[in-house]
Amino acid sequence: MVKDVTLIVLAAGAGKRFWPFTTSKALFPFLGNPLFAHTIGDAPVSNMIIVTNPQNDNLIRSYHFPISTATVVQKEPRGMADAILSAKSAISGPILIINADDVVDPDLLSRVVNTGKFGAIPGIKRRGPFGYIQFEGDRPVGIVEKPAAGSEPSEYVDIVCHYISDGSLLISEIEKIKSVGDDVYEKALTNLMAYEQFAFIPYDGPFAPLKYPWHVLDVMQTLKINKYTGKNVIIKSNVLLEGPVYIGDNVKIFEHTKIVGPCYIGKNSVIGNNCIIRGSHIGANSVIGFNSDITRSYIGDLCWTHNNYIGDSVLEGNISLGSGACLANLRLDDGEIKGTGRNKLGAMIGKGVRIGVNASIMPGVKIGKNSFIGSGVILDKDLPEDSFCVAKPGYVTVKNNKIAPARKPFV
Amino acid sequence: MVKDVTLIVLAAGAGKRFWPFTTSKALFPFLGNPLFAHTIGDAPVSNMIIVTNPQNDNLIRSYHFPISTATVVQKEPRGMADAILSAKSAISGPILIINADDVVDPDLLSRVVNTGKFGAIPGIKRRGPFGYIQFEGDRPVGIVEKPAAGSEPSEYVDIVCHYISDGSLLISEIEKIKSVGDDVYEKALTNLMAYEQFAFIPYDGPFAPLKYPWHVLDVMQTLKINKYTGKNVIIKSNVLLEGPVYIGDNVKIFEHTKIVGPCYIGKNSVIGNNCIIRGSHIGANSVIGFNSDITRSYIGDLCWTHNNYIGDSVLEGNISLGSGACLANLRLDDGEIKGTGRNKLGAMIGKGVRIGVNASIMPGVKIGKNSFIGSGVILDKDLPEDSFCVAKPGYVTVKNNKIAPARKPFV
Amino acid sequence: MVKDVTLIVLAAGAGKRFWPFTTSKALFPFLGNPLFAHTIGDAPVSNMIIVTNPQNDNLIRSYHFPISTATVVQKEPRGMADAILSAKSAISGPILIINADDVVDPDLLSRVVNTGKFGAIPGIKRRGPFGYIQFEGDRPVGIVEKPAAGSEPSEYVDIVCHYISDGSLLISEIEKIKSVGDDVYEKALTNLMAYEQFAFIPYDGPFAPLKYPWHVLDVMQTLKINKYTGKNVIIKSNVLLEGPVYIGDNVKIFEHTKIVGPCYIGKNSVIGNNCIIRGSHIGANSVIGFNSDITRSYIGDLCWTHNNYIGDSVLEGNISLGSGACLANLRLDDGEIKGTGRNKLGAMIGKGVRIGVNASIMPGVKIGKNSFIGSGVILDKDLPEDSFCVAKPGYVTVKNNKIAPARKPFV
Repeated sequence: MVKDVTLIVLAAGAGKRFWPFTTSKALFPFLGNPLFAHTIGDAPVSNMIIVTNPQNDNLIRSYHFPISTATVVQKEPRGMADAILSAKSAISGPILIINADDVVDPDLLSRVVNTGKFGAIPGIKRRGPFGYIQFEGDRPVGIVEKPAAGSEPSEYVDIVCHYISDGSLLISEIEKIKSVGDDVYEKALTNLMAYEQFAFIPYDGPFAPLKYPWHVLDVMQTLKINKYTGKNVIIKSNVLLEGPVYIGDNVKIFEHTKIVGPCYIGKNSVIGNNCIIRGSHIGANSVIGFNSDITRSYIGDLCWTHNNYIGDSVLEGNISLGSGACLANLRLDDGEIKGTGRNKLGAMIGKGVRIGVNASIMPGVKIGKNSFIGSGVILDKDLPEDSFCVAKPGYVTVKNNKIAPARKPFV
Repeated sequence: MVKDVTLIVLAAGAGKRFWPFTTSKALFPFLGNPLFAHTIGDAPVSNMIIVTNPQNDNLIRSYHFPISTATVVQKEPRGMADAILSAKSAISGPILIINADDVVDPDLLSRVVNTGKFGAIPGIKRRGPFGYIQFEGDRPVGIVEKPAAGSEPSEYVDIVCHYISDGSLLISEIEKIKSVGDDVYEKALTNLMAYEQFAFIPYDGPFAPLKYPWHVLDVMQTLKINKYTGKNVIIKSNVLLEGPVYIGDNVKIFEHTKIVGPCYIGKNSVIGNNCIIRGSHIGANSVIGFNSDITRSYIGDLCWTHNNYIGDSVLEGNISLGSGACLANLRLDDGEIKGTGRNKLGAMIGKGVRIGVNASIMPGVKIGKNSFIGSGVILDKDLPEDSFCVAKPGYVTVKNNKIAPARKPFV
Repeated sequence: MVKDVTLIVLAAGAGKRFWPFTTSKALFPFLGNPLFAHTIGDAPVSNMIIVTNPQNDNLIRSYHFPISTATVVQKEPRGMADAILSAKSAISGPILIINADDVVDPDLLSRVVNTGKFGAIPGIKRRGPFGYIQFEGDRPVGIVEKPAAGSEPSEYVDIVCHYISDGSLLISEIEKIKSVGDDVYEKALTNLMAYEQFAFIPYDGPFAPLKYPWHVLDVMQTLKINKYTGKNVIIKSNVLLEGPVYIGDNVKIFEHTKIVGPCYIGKNSVIGNNCIIRGSHIGANSVIGFNSDITRSYIGDLCWTHNNYIGDSVLEGNISLGSGACLANLRLDDGEIKGTGRNKLGAMIGKGVRIGVNASIMPGVKIGKNSFIGSGVILDKDLPEDSFCVAKPGYVTVKNNKIAPARKPFV
């Protein structure tokens, strides 16, 4: 049920922490569509304003939207309050604010706009450097940004999916705050909550914000994939498809390959012989070559693999791996991949990267765009973009004083 | 036909030459049972004494024996005569002495107890540092321990499967010898043979003593494997089973995999897609991952492989290999793996070892327990236990002045 | 229609540029026969003279020829004119001169002998360091050897498939030339063309001269392969054969393997499980082991692969690769493999070579006969024959202060 609500989509995030990926987070493609298309979904609203940045505005504007939509450009990356002020002239009545990069269950949007209260704010039980919701009794009365561990005002983390029935009051509260910082929006909202009633919506569904590069895997696992087979699909004999597998138009899948859903295979991609693909996303126009093992990984468009193991990894797009190159995803001691909270994590690789045969990329390594990694390299550190990394000539040659006996005929 | 014979099982061997394996040789598990259970088999005897050592006594005692059984602990590793003296108080009438670590055809035990002579001793034609049987005419009259090459008293090597119809005479002969050395038992037996008639039993069946770590492969190949499928076994489509393959309870075997018997797959183990397993032993609770090639190898319990070649190798247990790690089993010149008499021999790996992706272990290398081998390491020497072996940062990084052309769509 | 013509087959080429291959070019085996047998085909001639060299004369003479054939030995490698003079005593009437190493459509031989003119010379449009045909109007009047780029006398490159109805006139013209050089033959032919009419035959069929080692791939792709299955062939279940695949006697092909023609599999060879072979030539008595990917490659006799990628490569014969060894065939920047005019080119490997596990051979590298390449070597340069190339001990070992958690049972 569509309401007379303006959806404010915050899509101007600079994404510094998103390196080595250069695609704007809001535009990162999943299942053939940019992320913001998923977060918007079929929001039950009448019109939409997307706050963009100078880099992604054109690309976002070129998308076909089903409802009346405008974009406004936030000129500099000055935080959420500034982003909303960028859209000030278009904000009057009821608004629903969401982050383009935060994936939640689409139903949540309907829930927050239908509480009957002045505003609504959902929260999820989670630990980490988030904004926590403060309560008085059952009533939410504010947001505390990144409190010290142990002094959180509640168990609930704020999800930016905020309904406010009079957006001009929010603007007014933001403008009253003279301080500069990351939390101006939260302060303004807290001030508004002091005199207007907000509903709290406890939420325990999927919640995947896209901040760090490995979050691509979380988003991938959160988005629902339906079983589907497109046009002109060719599936050869002895191919096994289990669970929900989306197969785009013109996809070819060769013999003795198994795909265990949920998996997405974008249009025009080729899955070669004797592969296994589990819980992964393959973009469009990619070629998963003979004997590749793609496990819980995101592969973008125009990627080529060949006899590789790719585990818990993210390949942004236009990336090729030589035969035997391996993206390791688990430390020998099963320990945490530093700073990620994950024990299983492979490589995160920017666009235009080429990796030589039998190269080994250590767990959690990030590789900047347009870098080449030579054959046999054991890459144990992040690699800046535009790097050429070559294994040192690591062999000695001496006179061979032995002759291998000729192989005898086998029969 | 069970006779009133006491079986003396020598299971106290210290196993120093068995490094890197730490499991007591008598307890080394094969086909789901410790080795001693195989060597005892259903021996045609009425009761049994197992001579253990302080380390393995408890474990051996915890085993369920079908006949009346006692253990006696040999406190220090002082050889075979001392082991038998440890059991002195229990030895009176007929005895049959076997080594827990020597695998022979079970029929041999029946043959030696049924000759009608005072004693019986079998021999096998073999070359090497063994004890050789001396004859007068057809009659065996003694054992010569490790004679110099060329001065062997016969072609026949003594197999410790000795029947003596009055064990107290053997004890008495042992106690008469005052010298200390490895061959006290053989001297005592020789002395006994001087006045009591022994039958000689020529034997040409299987004979696999477990002394060196590569002998695990010999034992594995000697033990008979029967075709069997346990409970709750799941075998997916296009799986090929040839020859005798034992499949334990709860085993899962995935598509496009071939198993060529004789092979043993222990309970709860998983064999992934597109594997080949030939003439090998897989313990319980192991996972043979996608695209692994296990050839003539022993894999213990709780091992994980993934896209590996494991040829003529022994993995004791709780060992994991990263994708692309390879246990080479043949020198480039097809030469002997030094000191083993074998041309095909892979790695011998103790418990708790982890091997990184694309690592290469050279033929015949031994790896001590709890060691980690980093990705890409080319390990060409034995590695002590508790080692961490890391490939040197072997690459140089320069500015990349080339851009790889974007892959064109394939269709 | 056989004519009374003597076929002169030039098979004495020294093949210096053919390194690392040591087989005489004329004898290089394709589809079970030496190259010269293919170039001669069933030439429409009455008898044949093969000009050999001291190294290959015996081997060529031992071949069974369907028509009257003699060989004459060219003692030293002094070029084409000298080769023809070697056969002078046997040359009188009509002759047809061909190179044993140049593969063309067999029909071309019929065309050149049937023009009704005194002589005939075919040409093909091609760029490179070839001999170009000079015309006066439509009439060919001479050959210009390797003109500077831009000053070619026509677009047509001379193919050595020359018909001359009176061979003695050619001999006479050759003997008139006193200069020494590579182009004496072409000068003599040019002089002959001044007073005798030659037909020009424009040709746009296959033309594959065998000069450089990578030309083996061109010849392989030029020779026609017909679908055929020999005697005692065993093809297991789930084997896929597409397009023209020649399968020699006693070949075995194991499960889950795909062969995409045109492919030739020589007699007694074994193709293991889970392989893919595309557009390739496998000689006799070879074993393509588990999980090998052979793409557009020439594999000679008695070669063993095992879990290898072999792309656009040539393995002369008696060559073994350890598991995971990889012959890379594409630079990271997709650039030309230096000096070959090809972007896709793997390794070219002489006889008796052994390559260790997980070794990586860079695109376009040549390896001399009887060389060994150690495990894990990244070979980025040509390797002389009889070399032993070993990866430097490239790791450090320290005390491991971590214990890997035991794998939990999977079920």
